[in-house]
Amino acid sequence: MKALIGRDLNVVNVGLEGFAANIGAAGGQVTHLAWAPPADADPALGWTLAQMIGDRRVEDANRTAYERYLAAQPRLVDLMLARDAIPALGKGERRILHSGPPIAWGGMCGPQKGAIAGAILYEGWARDLETAERLAASGAVALEPCHTRGAVGPMAGIISPSMPVWVVENATAGNRAFSNLNEGLGKVLRFGANSPDVLERLRWLGGEFFTAIRAAVRAMKELDLKPLMAQALHMGDELHNRNAAASGLLFKRLAQALIDCGLDSGVARRALAFVAGNDHFFLNVSMAACKSMSDAAQGVPFSSMVTVMTRNGVNFGIKLSGTGEQWFEAPANSVNGLYFPGYSVEDAAADLGDSAIAETNGLGGFAMAASPAIVQFVGGTPADATANSRRMLAITLGANPAFTLPALNFAGTPAGIDARLVADSGVLPIINTGIAHKKAGVGQIGAGITTAPMACFADALAALAQTLATQTERP
Amino acid sequence: MKALIGRDLNVVNVGLEGFAANIGAAGGQVTHLAWAPPADADPALGWTLAQMIGDRRVEDANRTAYERYLAAQPRLVDLMLARDAIPALGKGERRILHSGPPIAWGGMCGPQKGAIAGAILYEGWARDLETAERLAASGAVALEPCHTRGAVGPMAGIISPSMPVWVVENATAGNRAFSNLNEGLGKVLRFGANSPDVLERLRWLGGEFFTAIRAAVRAMKELDLKPLMAQALHMGDELHNRNAAASGLLFKRLAQALIDCGLDSGVARRALAFVAGNDHFFLNVSMAACKSMSDAAQGVPFSSMVTVMTRNGVNFGIKLSGTGEQWFEAPANSVNGLYFPGYSVEDAAADLGDSAIAETNGLGGFAMAASPAIVQFVGGTPADATANSRRMLAITLGANPAFTLPALNFAGTPAGIDARLVADSGVLPIINTGIAHKKAGVGQIGAGITTAPMACFADALAALAQTLATQTERP
Repeated sequence: MKALIGRDLNVVNVGLEGFAANIGAAGGQVTHLAWAPPADADPALGWTLAQMIGDRRVEDANRTAYERYLAAQPRLVDLMLARDAIPALGKGERRILHSGPPIAWGGMCGPQKGAIAGAILYEGWARDLETAERLAASGAVALEPCHTRGAVGPMAGIISPSMPVWVVENATAGNRAFSNLNEGLGKVLRFGANSPDVLERLRWLGGEFFTAIRAAVRAMKELDLKPLMAQALHMGDELHNRNAAASGLLFKRLAQALIDCGLDSGVARRALAFVAGNDHFFLNVSMAACKSMSDAAQGVPFSSMVTVMTRNGVNFGIKLSGTGEQWFEAPANSVNGLYFPGYSVEDAAADLGDSAIAETNGLGGFAMAASPAIVQFVGGTPADATANSRRMLAITLGANPAFTLPALNFAGTPAGIDARLVADSGVLPIINTGIAHKKAGVGQIGAGITTAPMACFADALAALAQTLATQTERP
Repeated sequence: MKALIGRDLNVVNVGLEGFAANIGAAGGQVTHLAWAPPADADPALGWTLAQMIGDRRVEDANRTAYERYLAAQPRLVDLMLARDAIPALGKGERRILHSGPPIAWGGMCGPQKGAIAGAILYEGWARDLETAERLAASGAVALEPCHTRGAVGPMAGIISPSMPVWVVENATAGNRAFSNLNEGLGKVLRFGANSPDVLERLRWLGGEFFTAIRAAVRAMKELDLKPLMAQALHMGDELHNRNAAASGLLFKRLAQALIDCGLDSGVARRALAFVAGNDHFFLNVSMAACKSMSDAAQGVPFSSMVTVMTRNGVNFGIKLSGTGEQWFEAPANSVNGLYFPGYSVEDAAADLGDSAIAETNGLGGFAMAASPAIVQFVGGTPADATANSRRMLAITLGANPAFTLPALNFAGTPAGIDARLVADSGVLPIINTGIAHKKAGVGQIGAGITTAPMACFADALAALAQTLATQTERP
């Protein structure tokens, strides 16, 4: 021992970095090896994982699910009213879709409650906010996750029957996905605002704007979204918090289509000005495209591929391809972000919205290397952005060759999260996200980076292990 | 000596890297120091430089010139016919402007001859190509550089009286600059094509298209170009060989302005479709903006700042701020590039066009770090692109804070080339360039990277040294 201490120290430190720092401070030579125990140091999860890693049934199922995801060809086929596009919102239905996993009115966060009350007013089911809230609380208006009905919406994610929805069809498998219109920034329904001006804008979006843009969308025939999204990744978008290029590319097509629709020039001008003035306009189209791609991978027995990640402002929820419609939830992790002047973490609602469908599809945080300029919005440095994309390769089934990242020498974006790899490596899916004020209607107060909580993946794997234990593979 | 050889070799090698490789191969430890003799190893240039570096008059003049460049605020103020915008092309003038430094008809390259003949047909000064060529050769049609008349044009760079020109005004100093319209790719005048379909397109551009876009430009009032260009740099453009984002941003504004101009919908649709279909549409606007910025820095006595770099398909020419209208020329360096399928270096014309005004203003090759995707077009890797931007800092007076590069942590793009620094360091300005076929009218056959030849800078510095020796500073 004395001989050891007497010599120059030359140490390899494994695990907690703090020990390495101390040795270094004392003048010792130290090499630090980043390491964390697998399975989040949870023996039960470790046992589950040990059985599941290398299981042929899981490997085969993941290959199938991932290939279906890669093969998806999302096309923008229509803009419709939700009641005509989504049967659950059809004639006579008093139902509103919201973001995230299921949650009862009583447990909802401020922005989601505000947005639901606003949608009830917009639908004319109540005359004032108090009645609207009572209706929602009573169950007279059904509240369901968008994801349950093939839809997605950012932040509060509200879709009610009279709202227009983008209709995206995966031409390969024929499945459709829906998303609402992006209202812009500031005081908008998706941040819980429900004042008369917000409802006024919704009525215009559902009326004049809907008519104009529907005509343009129909004139474009089927707009192939994957090449457009790929192009936007080469123009600095990561397609979650930065959609400027994609919105511009969509504007280009809409403007040309619109000009021949024989509309009144005032109508056309107002519609185009709205699209041009909103650099996030494409976000909702992109989300519907993502939903159609990951839905294509859904429902493959034994697959540990993640097909849904979403947040309701309280809990983070995921679904796996192999566990069907089952939700796995945990309290949302905090957001590490940049706040707009005058706001701080005290003002922030918990992580909210279906927009993590971007990361579920290898975009957003997973594609940050495409978007060095995003760090001005979410914090960090361009080098961090690139490192985030690289790190996500540790937890994905592959890299999507349709979505390439110039800064990483045109490597595909990491895609197809394998819940097993998340649990085994401890590397959590990274999510670029907006931060909503916790009070309904204030709006966005920042943006940043968060992660999906480990407990969702642990629970999902436990459920998947059940199916592996009880079911035999069907040919 | 024996003692030295007997010990382990540990060598510092300066200059030619080949020696270091040999020592390494023989098992020696070698540290290579990249070094080249200053002033291109030319004693006369070295003597000139030695007197000029540190000369207060040059330092002060460069500060003035660079500040004028930085202060410039280019605004798109109009689209006009060249004869109304540029006095030298006014009524009755039989004059055609071309790219690069001055050159007589007999010495011109194929694409430039073809384009001039085409412009003579377009103007109706001749009925057939043979007559057109005879006219040009006889001097009956005057041929002058665009740069002599405050204008710039890509490739052949042809501007004749009946062609529309973008009018960009530097709001700070009031100086105006002009550029022609971008015709798209393929068989176009700027690559020397002059067939009936090419002239037909020019007539449409100078007629229906001109009327429509002029109305839109006037309706936009004064479009501030610097913020738009800065935004495009954050969207993957370097604004020379990649202009997709900037073209989209301009389209957005033109489309909205156009819709209210009361035009026939067919006219508006055709005009918008042309703009939307050309991802280089903004290049010429950007070039005029650049010209207006570097013209602002022109004419400061004793300044060694480069205000023009351009090529006529034979020679590369530059101007310095402190030597007025004097040209300094040398044969153009070769282009290291990627050729389109079926073409090779054998087919290539020498470096051509005024578009190096981009690099003169810190864009293009100097801003490659903004544009990792450009390497698919010009060759190399995204890391090379970033390294190019970094290297250019060695030869510039500063970094332009208006044009930031996300991948370099939002550092400004290197701008304001100091001819002294080029000669002293041997680092040549890098230029992203298209490659034209040497035969008139074939079109673009590739793209790549080239450099400005050292001899231009050496000659320019010799001339500047003359002014320093003979003139005294005026207060």
